[in-house]
This record gives sequence, C-alpha cells and structure tokens, in this order.
Amino acid sequence: MTAVRTVAVAGLGVIGGSAARALSARGVRVLGQDADAASVRAAMDAGVVARALGDDFEGLEDADALLIAVPVRAAAEVLARAAPRARSLALITDAGSTKASIVAAAERLGVGDRFVGAHPLAGSHESGWAAARAELFAGATVYLTPAAGSSDDALSSARELWTMVGGRLVVIDAAAHDRRLAWTSHLPQLVSSALGLALADASIGRADLGPGGRDVTRLAASSPAMWTDIALDNAAAIAPALAAIERRIAELRAAVQSADEAAVRELFASARAWAEP
Amino acid sequence: MTAVRTVAVAGLGVIGGSAARALSARGVRVLGQDADAASVRAAMDAGVVARALGDDFEGLEDADALLIAVPVRAAAEVLARAAPRARSLALITDAGSTKASIVAAAERLGVGDRFVGAHPLAGSHESGWAAARAELFAGATVYLTPAAGSSDDALSSARELWTMVGGRLVVIDAAAHDRRLAWTSHLPQLVSSALGLALADASIGRADLGPGGRDVTRLAASSPAMWTDIALDNAAAIAPALAAIERRIAELRAAVQSADEAAVRELFASARAWAEP
Repeated sequence: MTAVRTVAVAGLGVIGGSAARALSARGVRVLGQDADAASVRAAMDAGVVARALGDDFEGLEDADALLIAVPVRAAAEVLARAAPRARSLALITDAGSTKASIVAAAERLGVGDRFVGAHPLAGSHESGWAAARAELFAGATVYLTPAAGSSDDALSSARELWTMVGGRLVVIDAAAHDRRLAWTSHLPQLVSSALGLALADASIGRADLGPGGRDVTRLAASSPAMWTDIALDNAAAIAPALAAIERRIAELRAAVQSADEAAVRELFASARAWAEP
Repeated sequence: MTAVRTVAVAGLGVIGGSAARALSARGVRVLGQDADAASVRAAMDAGVVARALGDDFEGLEDADALLIAVPVRAAAEVLARAAPRARSLALITDAGSTKASIVAAAERLGVGDRFVGAHPLAGSHESGWAAARAELFAGATVYLTPAAGSSDDALSSARELWTMVGGRLVVIDAAAHDRRLAWTSHLPQLVSSALGLALADASIGRADLGPGGRDVTRLAASSPAMWTDIALDNAAAIAPALAAIERRIAELRAAVQSADEAAVRELFASARAWAEP
C-alpha cells in the first residue's frame, strides 16, 4: 500500500482548504491549485500549501494522491485536465455531493483503477479559503464510492486520506449513494426552498415565522449555485422523492379539506412516530 | 377600567399553568380548574392557585377575568359551561392557536362583549402542570382578537392580563389571524410532517439525516392531538397554503426533470433571496 505523504488539492475553498489544513496538521505535504491565485498565495503564506501546481497540473507527478474539491459541475473537467499527469498517483478522490457522474467520468477517462469518490457530510455557510478550518471534517461521515475497477491500493489510500482529515468512513456504491442522498439531503433542501418560495408568494417574511417555521426554512438560504449543480446532476433520483412528498402533502390537504379527523390524526401520528420512534 | 386582581384559569396544563404561575408571581389571585384533580392540587400546593373552582365553574363570580387554556376542540364547550356564571366578569380570554371559531362561539353564547381571544406564540415540547413555568410567555408575541362587540373595558383588561404574563401584544381580527397563522405556523408544521411521512415511506430514519434535514423535520414530532385540532379548525385557510407549496414543489420537480438549469437556478435564488433578504 502506498502511504499518503504528499497530497495535491485542486480547489482551496472551504472544503479543499479545510482538508489541506487537516492534512498539513498531520504532517502531510500539500500541493495546491485554485483558479483564484490569491487563495493559493494565502494557503502558502499560512504554511499549509508547500508548493503551487500549474494550471495544467504541472508538478502533480510528485504527489501520492489528488483531491479534487471544486463544484460538482466543474469536477469532471478538472479530472480530465489532471488525468494525463496522474498515471503515477495511488489515488484520485473528490469531495462532491453526488457520486455516480464523477465515478463514471473517472472510468471514461481511464483512471477508474485509482479513483475512489468521496462525499464528506460537512460544510459551512461560509465559503472560500478564509473559511477553511482543520476541524471541519472531525467526526463527519465520509461516503467513499469506489469505481468499478478501483484497486485495493486506491481504496486503502482513500481510507488513509479521509481518516487523516477526521472522517468516519462508509463505503457505498455510487448509484446507491446518490439514491440515498436524494432522500436524506436533497429532498429536505428542496422542500425547505419550496416552502420559502410559497411563503414569499404569500408576502410572509422569514422574520414573521416562529422558531419552528424558522427551523423548517433554514436550508432555503443555501447556495443556489451549489444546489443547482446537485439537483441537475442527481435529477433521476430527486424527481421521485419530490413526487413522493407531493403525494403526502396532497393527502394531508384532502384529509383537512374533507374534515376527515381520523385521517388527519393518523397522518400526524405517523409523522410523529417516525420523528420519535 | 376593571383592574385584573383575581383570574380564574380553566386548564392547568403547560399553557394555563404557566400563565397562572406568572400571574401569581405578579400578585394576582388565581382560581383554578382542571379535569385532572391532581393538577389542581399540585397548583394549590405550589401556592399558585388560591382556590379550586367547581366543575361547573362554581365560584367563578369572584374573579375579574377567566382564562380558558384547554385544547382548541374543547374550548367552546368550556366557554359554554362558564358563560352562565360569567356575567360579572370584565374579561373572558383564551389561549388557543386558532381564533375565528372561539370568537364566534363567544358571540353565539352572548358573551362577546367581554370576550377577547388570545394566542400566545409560546409553547413547550412538554405538557402538563409539571412543565409550567412563569417565564414561558416572557417576550412572546401574543395576538389579541376581540369579538365584534368586545367592550373597551374587556380589551383593556386583556391587555393588562397578557402584559402581566410577559407578552408583547398585537391586536388583530380573528379571521385575519387565522389566515396569517395558516402560512406562518400551520404550513411549516404540515410540510415538516409530510416530509417525515415521505421519508418513512422510503425507509429513511430521522437519524439518517444531516443537521439540515433534522432542522426541516423537527416539527414532525409535534403533538398529533393538538395539530389535528388546529388543522381541522383552520382548514379553510390551510388548504390553499398547502396547495401553494404543492405547486412550488411540482414546479421544482418539472425544472429538475427537464434539466432546465436557468429555471432551477432561479428557483433556488428566489428562495435564498426570501431567506436572506
């Protein structure tokens, strides 16, 4: 197994920057790249990034592993640029919220043997290098999604890397990951956003809500750019989840409108039984 | 104006009990009634309730005001029982989450002149006298909904009583209150419950969610009995609010399914603009 001693990080925002900080704190040598030259300089000034990589990943050959931490929609293009210089790497991993498309891209680009996708369940309302902190992933679940042909060495290296940044690892098939996240993450986000839209239509402000309503709408403030990427990338799994809640809301509405007390009570009771098993 | 020196509280649960504690702490004499005799005894042992009222409100004539703090569905019946002995009272008020039906009941029972409905925006996950605390309403918005024929004296007394328990008062028409609360309170509750139901259908547990998803589903644990009452009592205002979010979710689903990036981005951006104006 290849020990992970030098890691190239592409994208020094809050995710990549936090991983770089955590790795550096564990004694790993970090090579850095970001479209924003100021972020690379700041990461070098902070002593986190030892050396900058070129725009076309010049210098990547010195790394054991590459972590791609750019927005979901840009990840495949970054992977394509890095692939020609990645032949000697033990591991290519990423940090995107959807996994099937990037795993497919790795296989298509001929680097599936060393690719293991990753999705750390951690983030921040802030963005950019300035918001990066070494503890971001401490204790967080990190899904690892190997490609069809991922080598044992790549998976071992992925475990080593993501354990070093603090993750609790769960290995899962990429398509199963995306189906699961459509329910556990994407559906709550979309419902919170839809509630914000409906309240906006009714001229109700978020400040008009009580503590409960503010909880339900908290996610409506999430990044439109990030969630547009995720929603489009995982549309096939998200659409049935949205249809499912449309059915449940329509069912509640029908029970309320027809004053069907037993049905209304049963729906609230089932929801509570789910929330407090 | 009649000073509020003696208040009868019907229902010594977390709402009525907290009001009783707050009033007692402000030097008001409290008479108490509850279907559960043990709650009345506990409130008397605590020195909060000075005297128990009879089941048919025997002794109510000694009070200046009556506060009905029972579940929404039981309030009109309690009001009907109290009305014959309430002729000398300056004020009858309540604490229910919906207001049009109880105001209409007061008018029907011939006590509209002294009735001012109230809805304090405060509550607790716990219930019963044991959960009552004097500070529950400190700083909370309290909607006051006069009847068509409420006297100035009744409104002044309602202001005095609800200010003494710590409320920040907002006087509003009962029907307007119910329409507003359908959006600000009932819709978030129903959406959170519906999300719980949809996730249960997909065999996703609440523990499987991240912090964001747990926020969106927190209200799903609310009391089925209380929310069945509210949903049925305010069905006319709730149904259009549910229809509105069904339309917005369907719109999001259509945009996602057709990979209409501009539409998806615009929806997320509008939701965010609402959440962070």
